[in-house]
Amino acid sequence: MAQQRLLDEELTAGLELPPIFCPLEAATNPACLRVERRAIAWIDEVGLCADARERAKVIATRSADFYSRFAPHADEDRLLPAVLWVYWGFAFDDARCDAGHYSARPAEFVPMASRVQRALERPHPAAGDDRYAAAVHDIGMRFRQIGTPVQFQRFVAAHRGWLAGVAWQVANQARRRMPDLEDYLTMRLHSAGGEPTFAMLEIANGPEVPAAEMESLAVRALTEMAIAVASLDNDRHSLARELGEAHADQNVYGVLLHRNGGSLAAAVRTATSLRDRVLLRFMRLRERVAPRLSTAGRVYVDGLAYGIRGNAEWGLRVPRYLGDRTAADHEITWAEHPMEDTAEPIPIPSIAWWWDV
Amino acid sequence: MAQQRLLDEELTAGLELPPIFCPLEAATNPACLRVERRAIAWIDEVGLCADARERAKVIATRSADFYSRFAPHADEDRLLPAVLWVYWGFAFDDARCDAGHYSARPAEFVPMASRVQRALERPHPAAGDDRYAAAVHDIGMRFRQIGTPVQFQRFVAAHRGWLAGVAWQVANQARRRMPDLEDYLTMRLHSAGGEPTFAMLEIANGPEVPAAEMESLAVRALTEMAIAVASLDNDRHSLARELGEAHADQNVYGVLLHRNGGSLAAAVRTATSLRDRVLLRFMRLRERVAPRLSTAGRVYVDGLAYGIRGNAEWGLRVPRYLGDRTAADHEITWAEHPMEDTAEPIPIPSIAWWWDV
Repeated sequence: MAQQRLLDEELTAGLELPPIFCPLEAATNPACLRVERRAIAWIDEVGLCADARERAKVIATRSADFYSRFAPHADEDRLLPAVLWVYWGFAFDDARCDAGHYSARPAEFVPMASRVQRALERPHPAAGDDRYAAAVHDIGMRFRQIGTPVQFQRFVAAHRGWLAGVAWQVANQARRRMPDLEDYLTMRLHSAGGEPTFAMLEIANGPEVPAAEMESLAVRALTEMAIAVASLDNDRHSLARELGEAHADQNVYGVLLHRNGGSLAAAVRTATSLRDRVLLRFMRLRERVAPRLSTAGRVYVDGLAYGIRGNAEWGLRVPRYLGDRTAADHEITWAEHPMEDTAEPIPIPSIAWWWDV
Repeated sequence: MAQQRLLDEELTAGLELPPIFCPLEAATNPACLRVERRAIAWIDEVGLCADARERAKVIATRSADFYSRFAPHADEDRLLPAVLWVYWGFAFDDARCDAGHYSARPAEFVPMASRVQRALERPHPAAGDDRYAAAVHDIGMRFRQIGTPVQFQRFVAAHRGWLAGVAWQVANQARRRMPDLEDYLTMRLHSAGGEPTFAMLEIANGPEVPAAEMESLAVRALTEMAIAVASLDNDRHSLARELGEAHADQNVYGVLLHRNGGSLAAAVRTATSLRDRVLLRFMRLRERVAPRLSTAGRVYVDGLAYGIRGNAEWGLRVPRYLGDRTAADHEITWAEHPMEDTAEPIPIPSIAWWWDV
């Protein structure tokens, strides 16, 4: 709680977050606005939101813009269901993961999330589904239609991983525990939703990545690193918002302050350096691995890079994070250099292997 | 609690469980005893058990016998790590899932299980691993060595599904909630440990099942049905034991009694009929699908059938379930007919699709 006060004070005093280092290509899908309109129609049709306030909040996530950056070359009809899931994911997250009744009640969260997961998996609808379960079932049926069975099952497995990560977060919340850095980074590989988000890449883009490539250590490391960078960027994006809503309990800054003490400014430097080192490793490994991959594999890995860049850019512009300071089309200043330019592995067992492959 | 008394009374009065219907081929691996010796040496070497009592209990699970029935044709060196995981799984289950400190504390179970899962996944050891995490990390490294990356990642995903299912069970336990039949069956697809157990089949047998076959609806349905039959058989096996230890809270009989009332004898008939219908569907679908599969796919599906049969047979003989009534080599009487011979789908949305494919 002392940390919370410290964070509040430093932010009120106008702590400047450093610009983001992200020398990856940016692109966006030309179907973005059409997909946004279709997605909003779906939100209304399926009854995802309880009221106008919820609806406005979900639409303000700009999920169509978000995923258009992940899959800039996808066909409109393939982009749509991925975008629907992003809207759904933000709605579910806000209502039942990061905030709300379930957010600190693991004994209730886990059964609820397990039912939602099964609604996604099973090809049959169920009368007992609540609005989140019914909506994700609908999305699952769309994925089945446009994706291959392998792509669909990869998404299903990624979705389960995400909900398991959120359960961990909810469990920490229940016990008011701040995880250590290793636990936090491991948890965020799942709880941030990066797994299902990136698992949709091949459904949106079309070609199925051969299993031997997808499960190779190199591609797995690239996927995990993309998730790690994006989720650390999200910690940065949401710092202000979460402080405003007083639930900034678990983020990388809090974790570092809890462990190291010191100022928020120092924690920001440490977190940025950590994130930049992972991005550097991602870039170097991608460069080495991409030429050996199949076309489908290369499209997937390109998607990871578009996703890292797109997530950063979206997060710097979306009202969800900017709140009153919204300046949708302001020019973004990017960092020209990483905070720390080293190829040394980060010595944390859970992730150190990213530097081995 | 009234139900608990009812169950106790009926069992004391000598309720007879009907014989098991299981017209599937039985076989066992000739390397069983050698693998058992090697596994016991590993248990001691890795320090899986805290004391002699725990050690005796783990060895009494006869995990080598168990998995030798699942993979009767596997090479000894491929069978070994699968058997190690079964011993590990029973030890972990008894200490931290079905009983013990964590068994009704989801806020503690989920972070602990997440760390164990990561210990399996990451190629690096970690000084902070407890004995369960260290042992499963060791098993994971063995799987990596003998299996393909695809086989290993399938096991990892199955393992996560299992722990998510156990988290659901622990959550129910915490709230003293008896799930309804649909939730229970969905939960048991995961919590019973059938997913990782069957995911080891291809590691033990060798050939990698092509992704398009493994993720096809038919093979997924066969896998889920094999898990369902085996877990319902386990409910039957463990009924006596769990009543003795007073933690029979969640099993199919309790679920049916909770919903329908009536006698335990009636619940046993309903559960048996349900289980037999799933087995019949498994057998018919297998017969139809097997000729279309690759050799690796057929070996996998044969393994599902060996597993159903082996699990039933092992459960009828193992001291774990028989307790004082142990009669390791008594002759088993099998049912000649299913309790109900119908090809009608079971009208539960979560599983009804098994009859569609």
